[in-house]
Amino acid sequence: MGREYCRVTKVYSFSAGHRLYMKNASDEENLRIFGKCTNVKGHGHDYYLEVKINGDIDPETGMITDLGKLDNLVNGVIEELDHKRLDIEVPFFQDCTPSGENILKYLWVKIKPLIQNGNLHHLKLWETHNNYFEYFEEGI
Amino acid sequence: MGREYCRVTKVYSFSAGHRLYMKNASDEENLRIFGKCTNVKGHGHDYYLEVKINGDIDPETGMITDLGKLDNLVNGVIEELDHKRLDIEVPFFQDCTPSGENILKYLWVKIKPLIQNGNLHHLKLWETHNNYFEYFEEGI
Amino acid sequence: MGREYCRVTKVYSFSAGHRLYMKNASDEENLRIFGKCTNVKGHGHDYYLEVKINGDIDPETGMITDLGKLDNLVNGVIEELDHKRLDIEVPFFQDCTPSGENILKYLWVKIKPLIQNGNLHHLKLWETHNNYFEYFEEGI
Amino acid sequence: MGREYCRVTKVYSFSAGHRLYMKNASDEENLRIFGKCTNVKGHGHDYYLEVKINGDIDPETGMITDLGKLDNLVNGVIEELDHKRLDIEVPFFQDCTPSGENILKYLWVKIKPLIQNGNLHHLKLWETHNNYFEYFEEGI
Amino acid sequence: MGREYCRVTKVYSFSAGHRLYMKNASDEENLRIFGKCTNVKGHGHDYYLEVKINGDIDPETGMITDLGKLDNLVNGVIEELDHKRLDIEVPFFQDCTPSGENILKYLWVKIKPLIQNGNLHHLKLWETHNNYFEYFEEGI
Amino acid sequence: MGREYCRVTKVYSFSAGHRLYMKNASDEENLRIFGKCTNVKGHGHDYYLEVKINGDIDPETGMITDLGKLDNLVNGVIEELDHKRLDIEVPFFQDCTPSGENILKYLWVKIKPLIQNGNLHHLKLWETHNNYFEYFEEGI
Repeated sequence: MGREYCRVTKVYSFSAGHRLYMKNASDEENLRIFGKCTNVKGHGHDYYLEVKINGDIDPETGMITDLGKLDNLVNGVIEELDHKRLDIEVPFFQDCTPSGENILKYLWVKIKPLIQNGNLHHLKLWETHNNYFEYFEEGI
Repeated sequence: MGREYCRVTKVYSFSAGHRLYMKNASDEENLRIFGKCTNVKGHGHDYYLEVKINGDIDPETGMITDLGKLDNLVNGVIEELDHKRLDIEVPFFQDCTPSGENILKYLWVKIKPLIQNGNLHHLKLWETHNNYFEYFEEGI
Repeated sequence: MGREYCRVTKVYSFSAGHRLYMKNASDEENLRIFGKCTNVKGHGHDYYLEVKINGDIDPETGMITDLGKLDNLVNGVIEELDHKRLDIEVPFFQDCTPSGENILKYLWVKIKPLIQNGNLHHLKLWETHNNYFEYFEEGI
Repeated sequence: MGREYCRVTKVYSFSAGHRLYMKNASDEENLRIFGKCTNVKGHGHDYYLEVKINGDIDPETGMITDLGKLDNLVNGVIEELDHKRLDIEVPFFQDCTPSGENILKYLWVKIKPLIQNGNLHHLKLWETHNNYFEYFEEGI
Repeated sequence: MGREYCRVTKVYSFSAGHRLYMKNASDEENLRIFGKCTNVKGHGHDYYLEVKINGDIDPETGMITDLGKLDNLVNGVIEELDHKRLDIEVPFFQDCTPSGENILKYLWVKIKPLIQNGNLHHLKLWETHNNYFEYFEEGI
Repeated sequence: MGREYCRVTKVYSFSAGHRLYMKNASDEENLRIFGKCTNVKGHGHDYYLEVKINGDIDPETGMITDLGKLDNLVNGVIEELDHKRLDIEVPFFQDCTPSGENILKYLWVKIKPLIQNGNLHHLKLWETHNNYFEYFEEGI
């Protein structure tokens, strides 16, 4: 029987518009790869983000991390995406298409260094009720 | 004890981009009324639409209406909104802002005359997990 | 401003197998109408049933009806359908195909007379995550 | 074909503790009626409240009511219940047991007069994933 | 801090009938082990299947794998189970009882070799709202 | 390609009241750390617990473990928390605050030794729709 671990997850949401495309591809090529997701005018989704923090339970507070403080940190990051047209208004997505995978990469890079109590181990992003993406690091 | 009624509901979904705004208002006015939902570049949602048909149970098939046929009818209408930027690409929303309420009005006008077995009594549109709109007619 | 009403709803579930078919139709006819739902070997669903009781709030208990007693009544009825092959093992469905609509009719007839505190006003049956049926009486 | 109506619903949540009991009943009597819900130390629930407003679509804004303003009104009311032990800390529930039915009655009386754009027609309160209560007025 | 990984999950559904039983056991033995799930006439479920693919994000498309192609592959496999009575109509379940665990084993063997972009790392099968099964391989 | 594993998860629920606090802290300190969750009268939640068992599929029954027996074991443990005021009525929480993390620790210690078919690998506890906690051991 190995060591035991504890994790806390908080769910956040934001709405954003995007268009999927490859920068150097023709319209025909983009249509073939992305279908209607490459519509130039953009469409959008309601994203649900799960932020998962691993850590030890503080013996006094009984908590891994203060969820109120976590809310402040994560909402500050999400604010920059919420109700934006990602591929036009967010510089990061000028060079990489705002797929679910790349949105997670963006969120990982922004949120990871902000977490001080516990360790950001995993992000999960629901794009629709039927698909989601995960970004996580090796180990527990 | 009154007469008894039966109703069938099928759930559909589509994703679309939109911007909320009043045509004749200044940017400041639109910002005051719609907040970040008036962002010119647009944002988007995953809409869930519930189509509710009232009717008698066919004594032979045991069904109010054929759900396969209903799927064809409703998907044909939804197709015109799916992955579109509503306020730019759908003519109906050139003159009325694509709020959840007006999207339902659009869907009602399009779907209502297509239903022949049973009566379209009610439409429900989830915009996010936390809010939805309904459009329905008097009576049962 | 009209009179005000109160309603309580409890959710129940059961799993059952069924086959959709018309008794006097050929196999071809059944296949045309019901598609793969007419497979002779049967398939099945996890049904979620919402039982809705209208009534006055008892001034002493603060409740419309005792949910524990309601559970006993409804579970007694559901028990006869749970884990059964409906069209073969439940006599009611020998003469009418076990569609969602007809399952509700069956449940209405069985549950309605058992309710003594409050009035059974509405039944709702989820067949899958994407469709449900309702059976209800006129008035509130 | 009757007149058509539109409705908007927003979902809110709060957590509260409560104990169910009848003021003038013995402990035995309360145990018989309410089971473990009458535990003197109290237990609690995460309540989900759906606030349903009927009204006309404003031709300029495309909306029945401003959901941001509705949030302010409803959250002001919910604040008085959130993270409270209802039967001890909220005067209204000194004289009537904090059942789901009576919590809705409380919310109805508090929220109804605050709504000015549109008409509060219906409140729905989920107590657990398996049961909910509704409070609504006659008509549409 | 270890290497980072990305994963995409798509949700699928199918309905099937089954009966749980041990081939060489008596009816009494089967009843003792499986309860009403061993009813000879069969019952059924609506299964929700999550297919989880690990892989690198393609720098051009921003995606781990093309979800449209994944849909074609997985739906081709699911098609053989959908609306079938598993223990009678699907040869694989002649020799092993169609429990959730074994259905996953079947799906793993069928889907695994079809995945070429990315690696099928994990399957999750919801049998009801209250239970699910997982099948996955060692490592990330 | 590594070895393959199978896991079964069953979902349970219970309602409980609690108050978050540090035993040796002042009221001001507790208010600063826990906000309204430190209200002395208590509040409550509907907890959803997922119990995840890893194990080999029994070749005869097709199952990792008998879910009916698991229900008996887990419900026996949950019974001690259900409809209780955790920090007052459950001795374990006299010395450690009944945070989600500590409730999981309690459940882990109680449930772990009861599981004989398969290995309890993971517990997940939803506190609200927006946050959950996990407790698990190293390895698969």
